[in-house]
Amino acid sequence: MTTTDQTLPSRTRQWLIADRPLGRALAATDFRLEEVPLPQPGEGQVLLRTRYLSFDPSQKGMMENLASYAEPTDIGSVMPGQGIGEVLASRSPKYAPGALLRGPLGWREYAVLDASRLEPVPEGVSPSLALGVLGMTGLTAYIGLLHVGRPKPGDVLVISGAAGAVGSVAGQIGRLGGCRVIGICGGREKCESLVRELGFDAAIDYKSEKLRSRLRELCPGGIDVFFDNVGGAILNDCLARLAPGARVVICGGIARYNADPRKPEQVPPGPQNYFGLVHTNATMQGFLVHHYLEHHATAMQRLTAWVKDGAIRQKEDIVEGFENAPRALLRLFSGTNVGKQLLKV
Amino acid sequence: MTTTDQTLPSRTRQWLIADRPLGRALAATDFRLEEVPLPQPGEGQVLLRTRYLSFDPSQKGMMENLASYAEPTDIGSVMPGQGIGEVLASRSPKYAPGALLRGPLGWREYAVLDASRLEPVPEGVSPSLALGVLGMTGLTAYIGLLHVGRPKPGDVLVISGAAGAVGSVAGQIGRLGGCRVIGICGGREKCESLVRELGFDAAIDYKSEKLRSRLRELCPGGIDVFFDNVGGAILNDCLARLAPGARVVICGGIARYNADPRKPEQVPPGPQNYFGLVHTNATMQGFLVHHYLEHHATAMQRLTAWVKDGAIRQKEDIVEGFENAPRALLRLFSGTNVGKQLLKV
Repeated sequence: MTTTDQTLPSRTRQWLIADRPLGRALAATDFRLEEVPLPQPGEGQVLLRTRYLSFDPSQKGMMENLASYAEPTDIGSVMPGQGIGEVLASRSPKYAPGALLRGPLGWREYAVLDASRLEPVPEGVSPSLALGVLGMTGLTAYIGLLHVGRPKPGDVLVISGAAGAVGSVAGQIGRLGGCRVIGICGGREKCESLVRELGFDAAIDYKSEKLRSRLRELCPGGIDVFFDNVGGAILNDCLARLAPGARVVICGGIARYNADPRKPEQVPPGPQNYFGLVHTNATMQGFLVHHYLEHHATAMQRLTAWVKDGAIRQKEDIVEGFENAPRALLRLFSGTNVGKQLLKV
Repeated sequence: MTTTDQTLPSRTRQWLIADRPLGRALAATDFRLEEVPLPQPGEGQVLLRTRYLSFDPSQKGMMENLASYAEPTDIGSVMPGQGIGEVLASRSPKYAPGALLRGPLGWREYAVLDASRLEPVPEGVSPSLALGVLGMTGLTAYIGLLHVGRPKPGDVLVISGAAGAVGSVAGQIGRLGGCRVIGICGGREKCESLVRELGFDAAIDYKSEKLRSRLRELCPGGIDVFFDNVGGAILNDCLARLAPGARVVICGGIARYNADPRKPEQVPPGPQNYFGLVHTNATMQGFLVHHYLEHHATAMQRLTAWVKDGAIRQKEDIVEGFENAPRALLRLFSGTNVGKQLLKV
């Protein structure tokens, strides 16, 4: 085993799933902090010190055991999550101490993982970018917009949850593709940030403005691509304003994440205006990034080039302190975060 | 003017729109029968005696003035509708007396129309076929299934409103394309007719069976193409059983035709399970036949060949007597008809 010179503690902390937030809002009491002996790497494994954790609404689904795209979880098991860690000790020829790796670290200060489940943070890429625009977040925005939404130059692109991690990147990719980009988000400050900092053409504050009349003003010819992270009333209102041949991308549905999907009485109403698809010959399509594996390499190359050029900027929202991990995840569901939610350990 | 030898009456009957059925069910009192002098053809026009009238749910939308695809209507104007008539007198070089023509005759025993708005019933095609499988009905089924639904051999195709005019043709086209075809309709007799007479692989009576559990049994691997004529709970249940990469074709929505679409409190709930599109990468798309004009000629050629071969059969439901036109249209909304609803004058 190769190790760094750093002195290692004998005990370390990790966050466990204490309860399943199924059919209700996520709460701080759904997590429990525990102290355990420092784990030791076995053959083919590395010991990492967590530097950053990444937060995504899909983690609530993992806690509920309803995420078909993730391994099942147990009450009392370590809270899953992507992160970036520095190798402290290695029993794998793949990685030497000091290497910065990305992978499913979970909410642990120190994690032992098989080397095969980790990948190096690319040269010259900061940890926060590697978890954001140049990680799953950017990939989701790229695949959803370009492969599902397929905008053409001049198209009117409307994005809900536009100040979130994925929405803010999708809008910038749309702008690079020649779209007129309109963001929908909650709050004046978020709106201003989208227009001033990220180059959106306009933004609508759904909390203080009337969405339907604002859409009428801003999209007189209709919406060509609607990139939806929210669902509920926002999706319904946008379906009433589609342009001929429009594409509706279902990326997320934060309006429904507090419901048990098996209990219709909890789930927000479906979009009554789905019938707007008929008169416009429009398409509504859902996706997960793993449905488009063949496009991942090109996507990462293009995203990396755009970030290096300054054509795409990452908005990030960094909480500090390992003990604040539950609070960081909760921010996603209260709409407090602007851009990519991260935690610096 | 050339005329037939037939003795013409001096007066004739027509059905007028007496009220708009907006936000409620269609009623017999929405129509008024009136007697008028026999109209005379002007230059370029023909006088037709109506032989058959065709009925379609979209006619309710025309009465409501909410059909973007049709000319506006007025209270007191002649009820619009497609039909087939025989030329009795002609002031157009295009058509001679005796010709059978198809066009927007309206609910009139005798109609005068510009020759340019009419087309001949193809040689060897019966009037009822020309208004059904070899008319807009067949075209709608063909375009919706093949150009929007795009089934592959071996796909599981589920059709709602399967005993209706469009549904019964779409199912037969799917069967010719190698799909396993499952129809959803209301009533045991309709189910039996689909399986015995039209070659559907299975049928579900949504009135007496539990749709969700029957779909689980019949489509264990999920639905590849769902062709929807109904909406409401049927659409919602099918969205919960999509196979990866499924296509949902929104052709009609009979569940919502009694609602004023501008009044959300009247419109049936939207499909909560639209989020099923995400995990399956599935697509939901609407269409009208005029969105696919470039495919109409090929569609008609193929439909004609299938009908001649006996590969596609038309189920038709013929009401007799001009005075029964309102009753014939009402049958569509009570689900009484099996196959194409026609009226023989």
